Amino acid sequence: RIFARNNHKKTLIGRSLAVLMKCGTDSVSLFSVSPAAERLRHILGEDDNTPTPTIFTEMDTLQNEGGEIEWKESARWVKFEEKVEEGGERWSKPHVSTLTLHSLFELRTCLQTGSILLDLEGYSLPQIVDEIVDRQIADGLIPPDLKEKISFVLLRKHRHQTKKPIHRSLADIGKSSSAASSEFVRRLSQSRSMNDISDTPSTDQLKNKFMKKIPRDAEASNVLVGEVDFLDKPFVSFVRLAQATTLGGLTEVPVPTRFLFILLGPQGKTKSYNEIGRAIATLMVDDLFSDVAYKARDREDLIAGVDEFLDEVIVLPPGEWDPKIRIEPPKKVPSSVLNLNELGQMNGSAGGAAGGEDTEFPAPHELGEELKFTGRFAGGLWLDIKRKAPWICSDIYDGFHIQSISAVVFIYLGCITNAITFGGLLGDATDNYQGVMESFLGTALAGTVFCAFSGQPLIILSSTGPILIFEKLLYEFSKSNGIDYMELRLWIGIHSCLQCFLLVVTDASYIIKYMTRFTEEGFSSLISFIFISDAIKKMVALKYYPINRGFKPDYITSYKCECIAPDQAVISALFKATRLPLTKTLSKKECVNYGGTLVGNSCKYVPDLALMSFILFFGTYSMTVSLKKFKFSRYFPTTLRKLISDFAIFMSIMSFVGLDMLMGLDTPKLIVPTEVKPTRPDRGWLVMPFGKNPWWWYVASFVPALLVTILIFMDQQISAVIVNRKENKLKKGCGYHLDLFWVGVLMAACSFMGLPWYVAATVISIAHIDSLKMESESSAPGEQPQFLGVREQRLTGIMVFVLTGLSVFLAPVLQYIPMPVLYGVFLYMGVASLSGIQFWERIKLYLMPPKHQPDFSFLRHVPLRRVHLFTLVQIVCLAVLWILKSTFLAIIFPVMVNVVAVEPRCETQEDTGRKDRQTDRKGTLL
Amino acid sequence: RIFARNNHKKTLIGRSLAVLMKCGTDSVSLFSVSPAAERLRHILGEDDNTPTPTIFTEMDTLQNEGGEIEWKESARWVKFEEKVEEGGERWSKPHVSTLTLHSLFELRTCLQTGSILLDLEGYSLPQIVDEIVDRQIADGLIPPDLKEKISFVLLRKHRHQTKKPIHRSLADIGKSSSAASSEFVRRLSQSRSMNDISDTPSTDQLKNKFMKKIPRDAEASNVLVGEVDFLDKPFVSFVRLAQATTLGGLTEVPVPTRFLFILLGPQGKTKSYNEIGRAIATLMVDDLFSDVAYKARDREDLIAGVDEFLDEVIVLPPGEWDPKIRIEPPKKVPSSVLNLNELGQMNGSAGGAAGGEDTEFPAPHELGEELKFTGRFAGGLWLDIKRKAPWICSDIYDGFHIQSISAVVFIYLGCITNAITFGGLLGDATDNYQGVMESFLGTALAGTVFCAFSGQPLIILSSTGPILIFEKLLYEFSKSNGIDYMELRLWIGIHSCLQCFLLVVTDASYIIKYMTRFTEEGFSSLISFIFISDAIKKMVALKYYPINRGFKPDYITSYKCECIAPDQAVISALFKATRLPLTKTLSKKECVNYGGTLVGNSCKYVPDLALMSFILFFGTYSMTVSLKKFKFSRYFPTTLRKLISDFAIFMSIMSFVGLDMLMGLDTPKLIVPTEVKPTRPDRGWLVMPFGKNPWWWYVASFVPALLVTILIFMDQQISAVIVNRKENKLKKGCGYHLDLFWVGVLMAACSFMGLPWYVAATVISIAHIDSLKMESESSAPGEQPQFLGVREQRLTGIMVFVLTGLSVFLAPVLQYIPMPVLYGVFLYMGVASLSGIQFWERIKLYLMPPKHQPDFSFLRHVPLRRVHLFTLVQIVCLAVLWILKSTFLAIIFPVMVNVVAVEPRCETQEDTGRKDRQTDRKGTLL
Repeated sequence: RIFARNNHKKTLIGRSLAVLMKCGTDSVSLFSVSPAAERLRHILGEDDNTPTPTIFTEMDTLQNEGGEIEWKESARWVKFEEKVEEGGERWSKPHVSTLTLHSLFELRTCLQTGSILLDLEGYSLPQIVDEIVDRQIADGLIPPDLKEKISFVLLRKHRHQTKKPIHRSLADIGKSSSAASSEFVRRLSQSRSMNDISDTPSTDQLKNKFMKKIPRDAEASNVLVGEVDFLDKPFVSFVRLAQATTLGGLTEVPVPTRFLFILLGPQGKTKSYNEIGRAIATLMVDDLFSDVAYKARDREDLIAGVDEFLDEVIVLPPGEWDPKIRIEPPKKVPSSVLNLNELGQMNGSAGGAAGGEDTEFPAPHELGEELKFTGRFAGGLWLDIKRKAPWICSDIYDGFHIQSISAVVFIYLGCITNAITFGGLLGDATDNYQGVMESFLGTALAGTVFCAFSGQPLIILSSTGPILIFEKLLYEFSKSNGIDYMELRLWIGIHSCLQCFLLVVTDASYIIKYMTRFTEEGFSSLISFIFISDAIKKMVALKYYPINRGFKPDYITSYKCECIAPDQAVISALFKATRLPLTKTLSKKECVNYGGTLVGNSCKYVPDLALMSFILFFGTYSMTVSLKKFKFSRYFPTTLRKLISDFAIFMSIMSFVGLDMLMGLDTPKLIVPTEVKPTRPDRGWLVMPFGKNPWWWYVASFVPALLVTILIFMDQQISAVIVNRKENKLKKGCGYHLDLFWVGVLMAACSFMGLPWYVAATVISIAHIDSLKMESESSAPGEQPQFLGVREQRLTGIMVFVLTGLSVFLAPVLQYIPMPVLYGVFLYMGVASLSGIQFWERIKLYLMPPKHQPDFSFLRHVPLRRVHLFTLVQIVCLAVLWILKSTFLAIIFPVMVNVVAVEPRCETQEDTGRKDRQTDRKGTLL
Repeated sequence: RIFARNNHKKTLIGRSLAVLMKCGTDSVSLFSVSPAAERLRHILGEDDNTPTPTIFTEMDTLQNEGGEIEWKESARWVKFEEKVEEGGERWSKPHVSTLTLHSLFELRTCLQTGSILLDLEGYSLPQIVDEIVDRQIADGLIPPDLKEKISFVLLRKHRHQTKKPIHRSLADIGKSSSAASSEFVRRLSQSRSMNDISDTPSTDQLKNKFMKKIPRDAEASNVLVGEVDFLDKPFVSFVRLAQATTLGGLTEVPVPTRFLFILLGPQGKTKSYNEIGRAIATLMVDDLFSDVAYKARDREDLIAGVDEFLDEVIVLPPGEWDPKIRIEPPKKVPSSVLNLNELGQMNGSAGGAAGGEDTEFPAPHELGEELKFTGRFAGGLWLDIKRKAPWICSDIYDGFHIQSISAVVFIYLGCITNAITFGGLLGDATDNYQGVMESFLGTALAGTVFCAFSGQPLIILSSTGPILIFEKLLYEFSKSNGIDYMELRLWIGIHSCLQCFLLVVTDASYIIKYMTRFTEEGFSSLISFIFISDAIKKMVALKYYPINRGFKPDYITSYKCECIAPDQAVISALFKATRLPLTKTLSKKECVNYGGTLVGNSCKYVPDLALMSFILFFGTYSMTVSLKKFKFSRYFPTTLRKLISDFAIFMSIMSFVGLDMLMGLDTPKLIVPTEVKPTRPDRGWLVMPFGKNPWWWYVASFVPALLVTILIFMDQQISAVIVNRKENKLKKGCGYHLDLFWVGVLMAACSFMGLPWYVAATVISIAHIDSLKMESESSAPGEQPQFLGVREQRLTGIMVFVLTGLSVFLAPVLQYIPMPVLYGVFLYMGVASLSGIQFWERIKLYLMPPKHQPDFSFLRHVPLRRVHLFTLVQIVCLAVLWILKSTFLAIIFPVMVNVVAVEPRCETQEDTGRKDRQTDRKGTLL
């Protein structure tokens, strides 16, 4: 940290104020080396590698309440300022310390004129105060007769914001009735006994929860300012102790004190003293100045530090800003680590000193690293395994976190919904050769294996649309040509598996690195749109229970639905056969079974179902969105809010399942198979490779397998790229070759067992990552939590798929979930995965007048019309893909995506932005 | 404006940097008079009353593109900075100009060393440039041989952001192939001809829409910075022209130029030059410095101005702020007018010079002014009339605005919904002596008269709950005692009217001024809660069409509803009598009419109605809320967004009426009477005062009249206080006595016509005000629109009530509006009126941990536990009132509110805050 700032400093030398202050030069003095910068370079450059502790600063002001003098805490700084609200008796929000330039200059003068005691051997406050006052007297700054008075004031009690006001004793009240000044002499004798200065931390200090916010190595700096009636000029002292020492109740937390700044002055200028106190406190928490303070050899070093600080400050013009506004801490302060990286890249000298921090904030993995073409046999696979092996243990124990539970519930619900939907569709397409049961077992098997052994266990496998269409075409083909579908399918699976292996051993996945933002965004947007449109389509399809429009409540008597027998003869025969009592009303099903006809104007309608479904669908979606947003509200403590946000989907589902149960309407429910047996009775759990088809089919299936392989390769690897993109800050690396290897293995396994084929599902994988995102606990008050990365582990994935397998036994519980609720979850997934895509942000720009557009980095660097053009091209490409997707061409869909991918690469906005920043940076450095 | 700043200045003298810069003093120099401040006081104090023009600043930088040198606009300032995004080729958002202290000091040096030409007689750019260069040569700052080169550079074309890059002609391309420097000589001859300096504004300038944002009296200051290869030290010049002159294409808008700042320097320091340019530009738009610039007599004055600016700047520490963040303009900059007021109050010398501005931004009317106890007969009424009389015309023509239309639609819908609801309830309570018809006509009559003549035409009259309960009790009493209700009611009305007159002539309304925030908030919260609970109650009451829970679609055949005749004999008689065909199914109504019984399990249910009603109710509410919020989104131009927000309620109603029509369900609709005749056939339009009751009732009705008077007085005046509160910034004053006078008159009139009684309705009145709020058109880019006040006029009110009266003829259209939609509007009104109440904000604080609480001013000054206690007491009071309201005690409800009102006054938070701010202010001033 220090190193970074120092480095920064050295390149910025010369931009110092000092030259200008001693002006009289007759030309604009730009970039000449100033003495202040020289000095700093000298003292800071000596030993770079001993980092100085973090400084916690507390400012106490002298209060005189009813004659009782005490020091009262008025503000504190860890990184940002927190003020004690006088009337509110509370801490303000952390805010940026806005200082007046005036107070900084006054502080500078203070340091020039006051006494500076560096490396004072101090063990208790009284002793330190003695030393300070003696020095002042020695320097001739104060007359010796003031020593007692000053010591008395400096040793008064310190009241911290944590404490209630002191209830004065009866004796005290008696005393305070006489004039305060006349009491001085009498009290002087008590001065050593009346203060609470002890060497051990008090219980108040130890109980203070604020300690959590202060780094463990921190040292305190105490700023004491106040006005007294016996001084006629200011008494200023800056003390650095040789050893950080706990000075009793001086500081609100049990942090040892290293620095002391004391400013006592004549009466009438409290506000000005406070401002000077705030200025030194702000300086003390400044990275650079605190270094200077630790290493200063003399007064001049400190003043040079102030000058350097002044040289870097940012100035707000008085007419454009109201100084009363408290500025919220910025989202991101120019971090020292960042500077280090930037400088490192530029100077070509990234310090090895930062190695320790690298494990904490590593540079995001570059795509190229994992997708390098090794040129050796299975070289990529070998590297993948080598890369993933060290993480085996942490892949398990990183999963033990409360967040994992919500992630498992969320993804589990997504997976079974998917399994049921695709299971149902596959069953339709293949005459139940593969149905819901197969879908459940296949999902469970493939998912568990993949999450347990793959290169990127955050990827969730699922059936996908193109595979479904392929199966459908294949089944139709085999049926019309009298070929055994299952056996043919098995051979395709085997071939495809072998082809995958071939791709793995030849490192073919490296071509994925040629994918641009254009393709990546296009692909994930398209998948999101498909998700959204599917959710809505399914909802619309549910409405086979239409609303009875134009229903007149008054004519309720005319709404009925009766079962009319086809023929009287049949009826009597029937009644004889079934011995049904004549009075019994046949149900709809019975009626149809017995050949009756349903007649009446209410037969087609089921009341309330359509609207109820709509309410469930829309309600689940809106509630999830609102609960997710709840994290950013002001209500409730942060942890509770985070919990609510993490379990948003679960809570929405539970609420609307509850509502559905309460209404007791026959909404379509989730149907889960309850027995483990193949959906079609005439097939077993194992498919035999030989016997049913002519031998040449075993070879010929190579050709359709090729199509499947391309399909799988593209689907899998594009999803993997999206999952592994550097915005997610993954730390454990990924394994494209390893992933593909397992997909191939599962391909063959599933074919043998007659289960559907599985491949990475983009949207659910993104949802998986989103539900596992980690943010830093904000350390200093006011610092924004940073996105740290994703809880990379295998446990959630495995749990999801084990649960999916067990769902066969959970049927009694799951059957209460109405489908519209699940479609609502689908809709949410689609919309949520859209929100992370820059493409979507750019589409929104079309609707905004330029002056209201958000301050995106790319808008600063690329003309709006080029941004719009780029977006338009993407929209057109997507529209074309969408149209093609709706036709039978869907199977070759991934191939088309590939075609889009090799389109002439636009220089992406991000690249331009980065380049410009670099130039910018260089401008300041040169 | 100027005066205010000057005044401010004078009190701040001494806080100058200058003393500190010539330091060497050995004590902290606080508050001594500095030479800079002295200087400024001298030059600015001379003629206070001639305001200087607003300054528009444009900064152009020298660009060298392919050998073609030109000036390119890089930023501009009206109040905030707008930068040209280099890559984006667009204007950035307006932001606060964050400067570096360094650049300000460099600028100071520039002004010390460069040539300063004040009051230069300039008529064209070439002439001015000549003068500047000659002066520099005369001062020995540049050698004479550079004159040609500098003039050449300074006379290059100015390309503004509005223009596309110049497409160079073929000839130009030919030239530019040779080196730029060698071309100098050849081009020198063309220098006069090649620039676009003409005296008349170009079409580009005139077409520039940005002109709208610049005040009409503005003058331009042009900042030109750039690096050239022939200089070895900077060439700096600051020019003030004697007369503002349009210098051709120098400025992007046709604003005459008054100031010119030129900085040309050696190569390699472009960034530094830019920063200096930004610094002078920011200074030029600073109120104080621009004054100084206009009035400066010499170089030293300008430097004193810089020093004063420096002394006031706010400084952000480098470690806590990222200089790359562009700071959004604050909601409110410390405005000069505000300073004036504050200072005026403090110094007891509010300048008469500000009189002209007072009519524009008057001090908010103090409650005391209108509620002063005059002690004369009808003195208050007379003052009210005198106060309102001057506004008669503007009360009409201020109503002609697009916003009025939406307000009329909104309030009209609220009023008719209210009229129908109360009409229905009154009809129930009084056996239709007063029904929906009376309610409509009464609303129309009372509302129109009140809006036309009252003291506060923004108040909307309506029936209220307590009156309804009173009528109910009165009717029951007269019925059980054999007294004629209408006649008794007439006498009560007459007595009450006379009592109101008595209150008016004795200025009794003055007691209202003793009402505290506690009472006001309690009252309006309670009314809002009643509104919300009423909307929900009415929705629930609608569900006499329950949902058929547990409906099994399969057993649809068993759901029927049949009409069973009571007796066979009756049936046959019936069929004979009515000659109905035997096959006809009787409708529900017919069945009941003929004495049949409805039997069957679907009789009680009407499908879809309940859910549809819910969707309409909730949908209208949510859509209104979202559309209202749309104003704050980024999409679409501001005017369109404002329109959408203004018409939010109308659009929501139309959408959901459309949805309802589309579904064709029999939702309960608005039923409007279509014929103008009394609801009860046995009463006429006029009530006779004598003849039906014993004579002593005419006297005895004085006692119930007293209750009615108290009820009306409290209801009316508390609502009026809420409407007139100073947050609404009403400018035309109000008239409590006049209001009460008209309420009394209408009381008598309605009693004579047998119409309901009317009194101010809080929630609808607040909605009325909200829909008429005005915001300032933001003048300078980045300035936040300020809430200016309310469109105070009589037109909207009158329109609303005329429309209400005409609604009797609008029945065919209005009958399409489903009641749930209107209840949704009610819910919105209730929730919206809650949102403005501080009490509600304080309730929310209970749910927020202290550190997340918003930075309310009262939280800075009052301890949280006291705030919570205050809120708790309010909640308890409200809860008690709520319980009482639900009982028959509701009639004495306003009396109870009064009891709460005289509770020991808490010092309200706001008072404390204000006091503290003043102390604060004084602290800086003394």
